[in-house]
Amino acid sequence: MRDGHAYLNRNAQRLADAMIEDADRLGISHSRGSLGEHLIDAGAKARGGIEAGLRIVEICMGGLATVSASLDRSFGKWPYTVDVRSSQPVLACLASQYAGWNLSHEKYFAMGSGPVRALARVEPLFKDIPYREPEAQSSVVMLEAATPPPAEIVEKVAKATKLDPPQLTFIYAPTQSLTGSMQIVGRVLEVALHKAHDLNFPLDAIVDGAGRAPIPAPHPDFLKAMGRTNDAIIYGGIVQLYVRGSSQAARDLAEQLPSHRSRDHGRPFADIFKAFKGDFYAIDPHLFSPAEVIVTAIETGDTFRSGSRDDEMLEQSLG
Amino acid sequence: MRDGHAYLNRNAQRLADAMIEDADRLGISHSRGSLGEHLIDAGAKARGGIEAGLRIVEICMGGLATVSASLDRSFGKWPYTVDVRSSQPVLACLASQYAGWNLSHEKYFAMGSGPVRALARVEPLFKDIPYREPEAQSSVVMLEAATPPPAEIVEKVAKATKLDPPQLTFIYAPTQSLTGSMQIVGRVLEVALHKAHDLNFPLDAIVDGAGRAPIPAPHPDFLKAMGRTNDAIIYGGIVQLYVRGSSQAARDLAEQLPSHRSRDHGRPFADIFKAFKGDFYAIDPHLFSPAEVIVTAIETGDTFRSGSRDDEMLEQSLG
Amino acid sequence: MRDGHAYLNRNAQRLADAMIEDADRLGISHSRGSLGEHLIDAGAKARGGIEAGLRIVEICMGGLATVSASLDRSFGKWPYTVDVRSSQPVLACLASQYAGWNLSHEKYFAMGSGPVRALARVEPLFKDIPYREPEAQSSVVMLEAATPPPAEIVEKVAKATKLDPPQLTFIYAPTQSLTGSMQIVGRVLEVALHKAHDLNFPLDAIVDGAGRAPIPAPHPDFLKAMGRTNDAIIYGGIVQLYVRGSSQAARDLAEQLPSHRSRDHGRPFADIFKAFKGDFYAIDPHLFSPAEVIVTAIETGDTFRSGSRDDEMLEQSLG
Repeated sequence: MRDGHAYLNRNAQRLADAMIEDADRLGISHSRGSLGEHLIDAGAKARGGIEAGLRIVEICMGGLATVSASLDRSFGKWPYTVDVRSSQPVLACLASQYAGWNLSHEKYFAMGSGPVRALARVEPLFKDIPYREPEAQSSVVMLEAATPPPAEIVEKVAKATKLDPPQLTFIYAPTQSLTGSMQIVGRVLEVALHKAHDLNFPLDAIVDGAGRAPIPAPHPDFLKAMGRTNDAIIYGGIVQLYVRGSSQAARDLAEQLPSHRSRDHGRPFADIFKAFKGDFYAIDPHLFSPAEVIVTAIETGDTFRSGSRDDEMLEQSLG
Repeated sequence: MRDGHAYLNRNAQRLADAMIEDADRLGISHSRGSLGEHLIDAGAKARGGIEAGLRIVEICMGGLATVSASLDRSFGKWPYTVDVRSSQPVLACLASQYAGWNLSHEKYFAMGSGPVRALARVEPLFKDIPYREPEAQSSVVMLEAATPPPAEIVEKVAKATKLDPPQLTFIYAPTQSLTGSMQIVGRVLEVALHKAHDLNFPLDAIVDGAGRAPIPAPHPDFLKAMGRTNDAIIYGGIVQLYVRGSSQAARDLAEQLPSHRSRDHGRPFADIFKAFKGDFYAIDPHLFSPAEVIVTAIETGDTFRSGSRDDEMLEQSLG
Repeated sequence: MRDGHAYLNRNAQRLADAMIEDADRLGISHSRGSLGEHLIDAGAKARGGIEAGLRIVEICMGGLATVSASLDRSFGKWPYTVDVRSSQPVLACLASQYAGWNLSHEKYFAMGSGPVRALARVEPLFKDIPYREPEAQSSVVMLEAATPPPAEIVEKVAKATKLDPPQLTFIYAPTQSLTGSMQIVGRVLEVALHKAHDLNFPLDAIVDGAGRAPIPAPHPDFLKAMGRTNDAIIYGGIVQLYVRGSSQAARDLAEQLPSHRSRDHGRPFADIFKAFKGDFYAIDPHLFSPAEVIVTAIETGDTFRSGSRDDEMLEQSLG
């Protein structure tokens, strides 16, 4: 890794192979699809769990993050929390973890997450990420879904990555599973970076970061499950970013980044979603960010804070 | 591990070999017994320590748990705490970690803990654990004792596991040692599972779990040392469980699981033990559980809480 | 490692090699110096970061410690904290991590830290550390500096360790970098041991320990950056020690160890430094210790506490 490349896909493949090796420990199952692609059921028919979710977060962050879960009473009624940190937050979160690649086909709806995105580079977001993943021998895709992808999606990914289906591993787990709950809330740092980008903060100025959020209880209803994973971050997440640039820029970022600055803040996500009649894209995108943000300007030494945990909203949503 | 087996003993052997390799770092010593069995003194004549204790917890949980120790100020006067989690809690805790195999002989009194139990399957508890450990090449036994086991016990274990003594590793450390203190309080999740079983909660419904408890200071007096390790869990431990089944069943479990529901709750363990004139089995078995419990019903999405840390009791016992 | 040796340098070399392997992930760069010595720029021209700093702490502690960083709200306004623990605290902290070897030459000023010190044994401190590092194939030196060491220093280290320059790895990062901030505050346990030694507490009686401290924001001004790393420990650090010996000795240690017992306590370090006109050695050495100390006497079972975090001082210094 001494050539300017982080090798997100190579790292992720190593971690995916370890998941298969530890299948019984993780409660997951491995099989092959019709085109020879590797399939890891991490929470659909397989039971999955917290450990499976944590491994998926590591994979989704391209092996460039440290991820752990522990009981932390300082989080009030939701002490079981996930902690992520990365000294390559832009690559780990935006080039890899962000669920930004539309891998839907007919009735199959899924957004692709993971290092495959850095290889495919089909999203507009990559215009602002100069990093080029070197040619890969294999790639890993995470799908927040209850079933494996149809052949058309496998072929789409193969084509975009110039890989054959047997070189691809698709991991899937529905939002409603314990695995899903865990892996989605593992995006606490990612949503902060994504919103920073939306706010036009230069990505190359974000040099380090960490985040923590309560692991929400899964819910059998998709809407409630999705609501909880969002609310755990929006009303319970905390992020620390280290940025280059002026104190003023860091201060502005700290003030604008937390979720409370959003027009739609103040209700459980599921209620907001219903109020917008299920039109996800009508929701203020600035809602998707942690409750509490600390930004340190490393070139000036100043630190700025904004936002706070909202226990009332956590109670209403995760309750 | 793709054949439905978790291979607790193979995992544990790897971890025990690493302990021997790191003997100087851990302050332990390795030798061979009269029948060729491997002996690891982890806190008797050897000094041992926190790191040795943590390694033993990992071994006792059959390599199916993640175990760490850190300073957490939210635990009040006892910030140094151990955190364990497992997505295979029944196997890690009940099939392996629980100190349930009587390995006493004449004046040698010890209860065996660790993956050897899953291989021997001589305890009634295994009627309710369908998991079958595959034939093993070796096995590891943990004994809370100040001396290595007599030859009779080595032979008893060899016979029950169909292994030869040189294939067995016995780790021992007394309750009064720092290692002992650490490894015993590492049972914080296990005691919750054991009590859930006593309460007739179906084991196959417990799918994931985590626990944290203060690491008590060791004490040179056996009774006080034993009291502290129990009190650290009974008055200071917290556990999160994820269960299948109805909300009502999860609510009942959460309400009955914490130690405060026991008849004998409210005094330091050593005092209770004395009050019962040292008759361990006269003590209400439901006392042995964490102070605080959170149970999430993953099929309904509801979470229930009960119990709380008792700083006064911690002060009296661990003081 | 079964021969009474902890092999600090072998451990550290393995970790340094891993840093080079993960150069892109860590934001560091590797090169060779004029004498063939290995150079790792971990925060000078290279950007470095938290992960690089954590790896350096592991290296500086000779591979005998567990080091992590996470967000812990119980630390108030500075939740991003580092946690270190070791069951070989004297070797990890004093024989290795303490920045005690003067490796200055002409205008190059640097104090050497890391396992190289245990090999060179040129400092008076080693009179009180009986441990002898076996002959090593290589060694690692950490320098809190903005530039690589001059050839004279490379030769001085080679001579003292009886190694050739190509067998030496010099890691450097300035105090003002994020890497520097992280690696220096990683000395939270070390300063406690160093002050215990100053207080004439017998080193062989210190058997285990852990520490935690907030990671201070770096500052472009050297004096402020240095002040912050000191203040993070002096006003925000917490340490737990386990010691042999009497309760009285443990009580005395707990009472004398925290920073508030120092004459110079009560102002940000940078202000104290200025008041003494930059004469580092005029500052009370007993100032360099954690804010809060817990000492457990393992042979008597008693635990003693003293000191507390000073949020006002943290605010003034780290602000």
